[in-house]
Formats: sequence, C-alpha cells, structure tokens
Amino acid sequence: MLAAAKAEGRPVFVLALEGQTASELVADTDHGWIPMGAVGRGIEMLKAAGTGDVVFAGGVRRPSLLKLGLDGRGAKLLAKVGKAALGDDKILSVLINELESDGLTVVGADDILSGLLVGEGSLGKHDPDDLAEADIARGVEIGRTLGLLDIGQAVIIQEGIVLGVEAVEGTDALIERAATLRREGPGGVLVKIKKPGQERRADLPTIGVSTVDACARAGLRGIAIEAGSTLVLGRDEVVAAADAAGLFVTGIQVPES
Amino acid sequence: MLAAAKAEGRPVFVLALEGQTASELVADTDHGWIPMGAVGRGIEMLKAAGTGDVVFAGGVRRPSLLKLGLDGRGAKLLAKVGKAALGDDKILSVLINELESDGLTVVGADDILSGLLVGEGSLGKHDPDDLAEADIARGVEIGRTLGLLDIGQAVIIQEGIVLGVEAVEGTDALIERAATLRREGPGGVLVKIKKPGQERRADLPTIGVSTVDACARAGLRGIAIEAGSTLVLGRDEVVAAADAAGLFVTGIQVPES
Repeated sequence: MLAAAKAEGRPVFVLALEGQTASELVADTDHGWIPMGAVGRGIEMLKAAGTGDVVFAGGVRRPSLLKLGLDGRGAKLLAKVGKAALGDDKILSVLINELESDGLTVVGADDILSGLLVGEGSLGKHDPDDLAEADIARGVEIGRTLGLLDIGQAVIIQEGIVLGVEAVEGTDALIERAATLRREGPGGVLVKIKKPGQERRADLPTIGVSTVDACARAGLRGIAIEAGSTLVLGRDEVVAAADAAGLFVTGIQVPES
Repeated sequence: MLAAAKAEGRPVFVLALEGQTASELVADTDHGWIPMGAVGRGIEMLKAAGTGDVVFAGGVRRPSLLKLGLDGRGAKLLAKVGKAALGDDKILSVLINELESDGLTVVGADDILSGLLVGEGSLGKHDPDDLAEADIARGVEIGRTLGLLDIGQAVIIQEGIVLGVEAVEGTDALIERAATLRREGPGGVLVKIKKPGQERRADLPTIGVSTVDACARAGLRGIAIEAGSTLVLGRDEVVAAADAAGLFVTGIQVPES
C-alpha cells in the first residue's frame, strides 16, 4: 500500500507502531514510532508532519494490556471502549473518531488508491463451478457470523466442510493450516469478506499475489472476495498467478444485512 | 472410553472405520472394519456380533465423498441428508436414526459409563478469576455460534481476544496453535461446549489429561467445559495435572437456547 501511494507521487509520513510495524517497511520513508497506546503522542506527530489524509494500512493486533504503552489520551480512550469487549474493529472505530475530533481526516485506502477495490466477477480466466459456488455460499454465511462476533475475516470450506476459521493467526496461517487438513477430491475455497458494519477506513480485507500462491500450495481451487470491499494489491500479478495455477479469484456480492 | 468400558467388565465389539480408527486401538478387542459409507454392512456386522447397546466413541471426520466407500444403504442415507449442508453432527443424527430403525439401541457414552460427565464448578483446587470469567462468557457466546454453524466445539480467548477457533483440526491442534499466538499478560482460556441441539449420543465434548497438559504448555490459565455435557476421561489424573500446573478446570452452565 505504501508502494502504491508512493507510485502515485504522494508525500507520505508513516506512524509506525512499536512491536507491530516491520522496521524495514518504513526505513526509506519519513516516519515516527509510538507504542500503540500513545494516542495523544501519535496525533501530535501526525499534526507536526503536516498530515492531510490519514490512512490505516496493514494488520494491527492488540497486544496485552500491559504492553499497550498507554499515554493519558490513550488511557481515556480505552476507558471509553471498555476492556471487556475489545475486538479489533471496535478499537479502530473509536480511534478514528478520536483522530477526526482532532481535525485530522481519516480516509480509506480505496479512497486514495484508485482501482484497488475488486468488482463483481472473476479477475482471471477461471470461474467457480457449482460445487465451488456452494462452498462460497457457506463461507459467506460463516464469514458474516465471524465478523459479527469480531473474530476474523476468512474461512476455508471444502465440499461443505469448514476446514478452518481465521482468528488472530491471520489469513496466511489459515491457508497454510488448510494444506494439512484438506480432504481428497475437489479442493477447498478461501472466502474473505469484511465484517458486517465494519469501519471501512480500517483493515479492509486485502489479498495479493502471496495469497494466491499460498492457496495454490494448499490445494485450494479458488478465492472468493467481497466485491466493492476487498483490496487487491498488484492485480496483474494476482491474475497471472491465479491463471497459471488454475485458481479462480472472484468478486462476490455480499448482502449488507 | 474403550478402556473404561472394559474396566466395567462389559463385553465389547468395535466397529472400526477404515482410514479413521487407529488399528492399535482395536488390536486387543473383538472388532470389524468397514469403510465409513458402508452403512448396510456395518449394521449387519453389529447384529452378527450380538450387539446390545451401540455407543459412538472417538472423533470421526467425514472424508471426501470419493472416499466414503458407500454401499447401497449408505448411498440412500446420503441422498436423504443432502450433500450440500453436510456437517458432522447432521450425518450422525441421521445415522443414529437409521441404526435404531433397524432395531439397534444407540446410547450415549455417559449412559453406560457412570461418572464421566462433569458437573458444575471446579474439579481441582484452582478457580477462574474475574478476567477469566469474562473470557469464558465470550467463549461460550462464540462457541454456541460455532456450534449452530456446525463448525467446531472449542475456542480460545485471551483478554477478550479470540486467539483461535476450532474447525476440523481438532482441539489439540487449536491449543498448540494458541501457544504461538498468545499475548503477554494473563493467559487465555479454553472453552469447549457441545453444539446447541447436538445429538447427545455422538461426539460429546471430551477432555483428558492430554488436554490439560497441552493447555499448560500453551500458557493457558484454564479450561471451561459444559456441565452435564462434557466427558472427563481419567478424572483423577486430570485434577492432579491441573492442580500441579496451576490451571482451573471448571464445569459451567450453558443455556440451552
């Protein structure tokens, strides 16, 4: 996403999160580091950098409360959310409100990077068959429920069997696990959709060529992603890899409620 | 479970499933082998062995349709269930009805092995604290939903975060994965409950000393299981292991609907 923004010639300042962001990722870019809970300090750094649009990019996982590194403002925010029911998405919504109340503008990655969002239909030359369509339908049903419970965005289905469900391990680990769990016969399908009611400006489902490669290695038959709500990074490479591996990559409509 | 039945002096015949049952498990016991889909043949073997009560024991995972080894009766049964929505539990219910329609009596493991079911409250000397109680409550909510979708029986929660959700990989693999995903701070909790409306005579949630040992290795703080619906195998060893490792093992009430 950083590469895509730079390719468009945008000036970029990265607010990197200690223990979360890979340091090599920001090495060549203007950046600053904060612990995840230092909300007040982060806002000051963004303002000092003259930030216009703020974009959330990359997965962030909440560390233990002990390691949040809360500053005064972070602590107030956490008190507002409540410790008990803290899912990733809820924190992000509250955080976005907080940034906007301070005069910053938070936009979605899809707002500034045109063309990343997938539309409806298959990206490459392969399409799901009837069996795959049935697995996709079951995956969407389960994915929506997982989202409502703020658990994860991805699920793998093979012939109606749920091979695996994503929680904090992330989609790549889920796919890797599915490789060891798959049954013989037609391979499974990865279904990745956003959480119902998810704050669109944070953590939209994303796939890239590494996702396609991992699915091919795991013996999956294809990937179904939510049309209008999933970012495809490096679309040409994604299509080439999927076509070569015989996988479908298909944007599907997911009902809002 | 086989050992427990033998210890009670019951004569035992095991109908072992090709590709599912470990052969060393049945080596010292009167037994016969069938492919999972050979329903007619299995019923004949049970009758020929003079079987009184039939008990389902051990996890069974549906193989690919290609490997079911359906006989005529198995094929009819499968047509009745429908291929599309085949979860483990649905198959088992239909199978149990089929056995009973043939004059066999299917009973739950808890019906013949007294004392295996866990009651309410902690088995050993450790109890969940308030944080663990909150994680258990979230685990029960999620576990019920997973059950309604016929996905799995177990979930691991740490400070409100869903570390992992069980699908076909089974509880042991889930626990092992959680070891690598855990956050610092107070450890997570394993919550294992039956599926809402689950056929009680098949695949009741089960834990044993290996479950406790795995949880201890994964840095979890305890195990919450459904009172009245979870089998504890080797209770004395379970309590000793949990007490030694500082884990709680607690039977909890789960509302039926």
